[in-house]
Amino acid sequence: MKIPEILLVESEQKPGSLAKILQVIGEAGLLVEHLNSVRREQGKTLWEITLEMDEETDRGLYDRIDALPNAKLLGKSDRVFNRHRGGKIHTVSKESISSLQILRDIYTPGVARVCLAIRDNPDLARTYTSIGDTVAIVTNGTAILGLGNIGPLAGLPVMEGKSALFATFANITGVPILIEEQDPDRVIDAVTAIAPSFGAIQLEDIAAPECFYIEKELMKRLDKPVLHDDQHGTAVVALAAMMNVARRVGCDLKTSIVGQIGLGSAGLGIAQLLKAEGLERLIGADLDAQAVERFEAIGGEPATMEKVMSEAEIVVATTGVKDLIKPELVRKGQVILALSNPDPEIEPLLALEHGAAFAADGKAINNVLGFPGLFRGALDAGAPRFTKNMLFAASRTLTELTEGNDLVPDVLNKGVHDSVAAAVREQAQKEFGS
Amino acid sequence: MKIPEILLVESEQKPGSLAKILQVIGEAGLLVEHLNSVRREQGKTLWEITLEMDEETDRGLYDRIDALPNAKLLGKSDRVFNRHRGGKIHTVSKESISSLQILRDIYTPGVARVCLAIRDNPDLARTYTSIGDTVAIVTNGTAILGLGNIGPLAGLPVMEGKSALFATFANITGVPILIEEQDPDRVIDAVTAIAPSFGAIQLEDIAAPECFYIEKELMKRLDKPVLHDDQHGTAVVALAAMMNVARRVGCDLKTSIVGQIGLGSAGLGIAQLLKAEGLERLIGADLDAQAVERFEAIGGEPATMEKVMSEAEIVVATTGVKDLIKPELVRKGQVILALSNPDPEIEPLLALEHGAAFAADGKAINNVLGFPGLFRGALDAGAPRFTKNMLFAASRTLTELTEGNDLVPDVLNKGVHDSVAAAVREQAQKEFGS
Repeated sequence: MKIPEILLVESEQKPGSLAKILQVIGEAGLLVEHLNSVRREQGKTLWEITLEMDEETDRGLYDRIDALPNAKLLGKSDRVFNRHRGGKIHTVSKESISSLQILRDIYTPGVARVCLAIRDNPDLARTYTSIGDTVAIVTNGTAILGLGNIGPLAGLPVMEGKSALFATFANITGVPILIEEQDPDRVIDAVTAIAPSFGAIQLEDIAAPECFYIEKELMKRLDKPVLHDDQHGTAVVALAAMMNVARRVGCDLKTSIVGQIGLGSAGLGIAQLLKAEGLERLIGADLDAQAVERFEAIGGEPATMEKVMSEAEIVVATTGVKDLIKPELVRKGQVILALSNPDPEIEPLLALEHGAAFAADGKAINNVLGFPGLFRGALDAGAPRFTKNMLFAASRTLTELTEGNDLVPDVLNKGVHDSVAAAVREQAQKEFGS
Repeated sequence: MKIPEILLVESEQKPGSLAKILQVIGEAGLLVEHLNSVRREQGKTLWEITLEMDEETDRGLYDRIDALPNAKLLGKSDRVFNRHRGGKIHTVSKESISSLQILRDIYTPGVARVCLAIRDNPDLARTYTSIGDTVAIVTNGTAILGLGNIGPLAGLPVMEGKSALFATFANITGVPILIEEQDPDRVIDAVTAIAPSFGAIQLEDIAAPECFYIEKELMKRLDKPVLHDDQHGTAVVALAAMMNVARRVGCDLKTSIVGQIGLGSAGLGIAQLLKAEGLERLIGADLDAQAVERFEAIGGEPATMEKVMSEAEIVVATTGVKDLIKPELVRKGQVILALSNPDPEIEPLLALEHGAAFAADGKAINNVLGFPGLFRGALDAGAPRFTKNMLFAASRTLTELTEGNDLVPDVLNKGVHDSVAAAVREQAQKEFGS
């Protein structure tokens, strides 16, 4: 795994002193990702030099820089950890509490009347509280990213990341809820007990097969949208990408043979959307017999990985296993989406070298394109749940907004998230009224 | 209950037209709280006129304004409800997510390394997540303000108010957690299940006697600060006020006879602090025999309300019952703190008229002075729980920072909250190490 490290190097302000530092870095086989002069004083310049390093990088580099006549290594830092220091989110008051009048309006005694109004008409909570903008981001830590069962606290940085993205792209307050329970019924009870706090529930990084049961039960018990993001959020973006790829390589997605490697939560979510979209032939492989059973139950056709690779025109891999797909298995003209993060089942460049017509990894098919707009749309419509057609509406919008030869739209474009939200809201209003 | 209402009145720009409007308002017996010109165009001015109204206010006023030759009532609004529209809090991302590099650092793939670091050393969560700034504000809605068991959703505006105050005065992210359970064991289970999400737990507006059991059990089960604010937060501020009043009327608090009317959660919290502070004689009245038993268990002496009023030098009322204390019961020279919100047991002016040496209500002894600094200090120290001495440290600080003849310091002064936090942190470090 590449790690961005930042070296703090002080150099004498003499011609060529920076060049010497960069030469040492070049000789170590490292690329300079970013270079920044932080301070210039007393004949010295302090440089912040960002390098992508990994565990095999020779750390002797530090000594060699320090040994240069006109340079001194003052320290190093890690950009990723720096960006996490103190946490990534915080809550703010919308109104500045600058007078006693404001304090008395938003707290006692003023707040009492708002409480009574909501007691008499609970729907008013959507108008006079933040609940219509608030989503719980629930995990029990059993399947954090591709890292496995590392527990909910270790998963908190992911939940905070999702919360930061909710805030940025959908004006949603995402509240990380870490549940110290592995028993699915206890997770369900805990979420049910605190559900009144939130407008919707996002389930996140919960291991299969428990995730399926937990989602199904919570959808039954709660009168508000519940979505397991690893399953459906990822599926929405993957389907959009597949529609774009199909168009680009000139095939019809519905009549193509699609093969899946990995039928866990992401895989099953994709399979469900593909079958609901009318795909005729869907084959899939997984080592877990239960996963294969669930896949068959929705109309998928079990196969070995080798069969998937030899028959499918479009391959979607969601196994979490790095380098699982040997390049010699790639069929000429095949489309390969190796979606596992942080490391794909096959590097896209390698797949292309071995004859793939198109290849991409999970970084290119970012599930960040899905969940902010999905939840914003569902909340704005006051929908009691997500439906297949709401998910399709999101996929379709992502496909329509994709530019040029891209696979999906630009994730940083707020307008894309707004459009997804609008499409989901409209679909929900069609189904549930507005 | 007085309600601030805002009238939107358009007047012709003719000399005297505004005076006529104000005259009609004056004739209705109403005070103008605020007046603001919102718009001036086409010979007309739009005025926003804020009036304190109550349920008995004659609404015929609206027609009389509208009937004026040069004025038109365009509408009215309610400042308190306006301030609640859309909710009072929201979560923001600390870093602006303006590049793919930032996205990849705070979310996948970068976040994975932070997760693994926390898995290997859970203490790192305090450094690399927001957990050290995050407090759950938990209620089951059984005792919201003085309004009773109106349910958790109707209590949400109070929890959001607390969250806004946490954010403003202590840089704390307060997360409203509404629990749809009345059974105390189920409340305890739900809080325990989600406790890993938070650095500390604030219990709020939970009815007695369940609140005592819930707090005690959670303190036992969780290795992080748990505080029932209605009990201890209010007690901290009340004790500070009592120390100031005692100094002002020239008596020694410890040797005074203090009488309490109402021994619910706030009353018991105050009693506990007073006894722990070394108060010799504490008498108290409550209609609930169990409440009186708890009071006796900590060294209080049961009495009737009449006996409290006739014997106590300092009376503290926390019953939630408006106008409970008949003015003829007030003893000459007595100090009366009638703390129930929004309506006190006796109006301070009335108590003074009947001979009290000093009287104040809950508006003057705002519990907002307590909880932000208490939690900030406990979180900063990494304390596993609140102790009596941490509460005293907060009270003492509030007493020291009170200016002139005030009862408590200015609640809007951020420096006061910072000082409370520092005192609590130092005390916690003394007890638990730093």
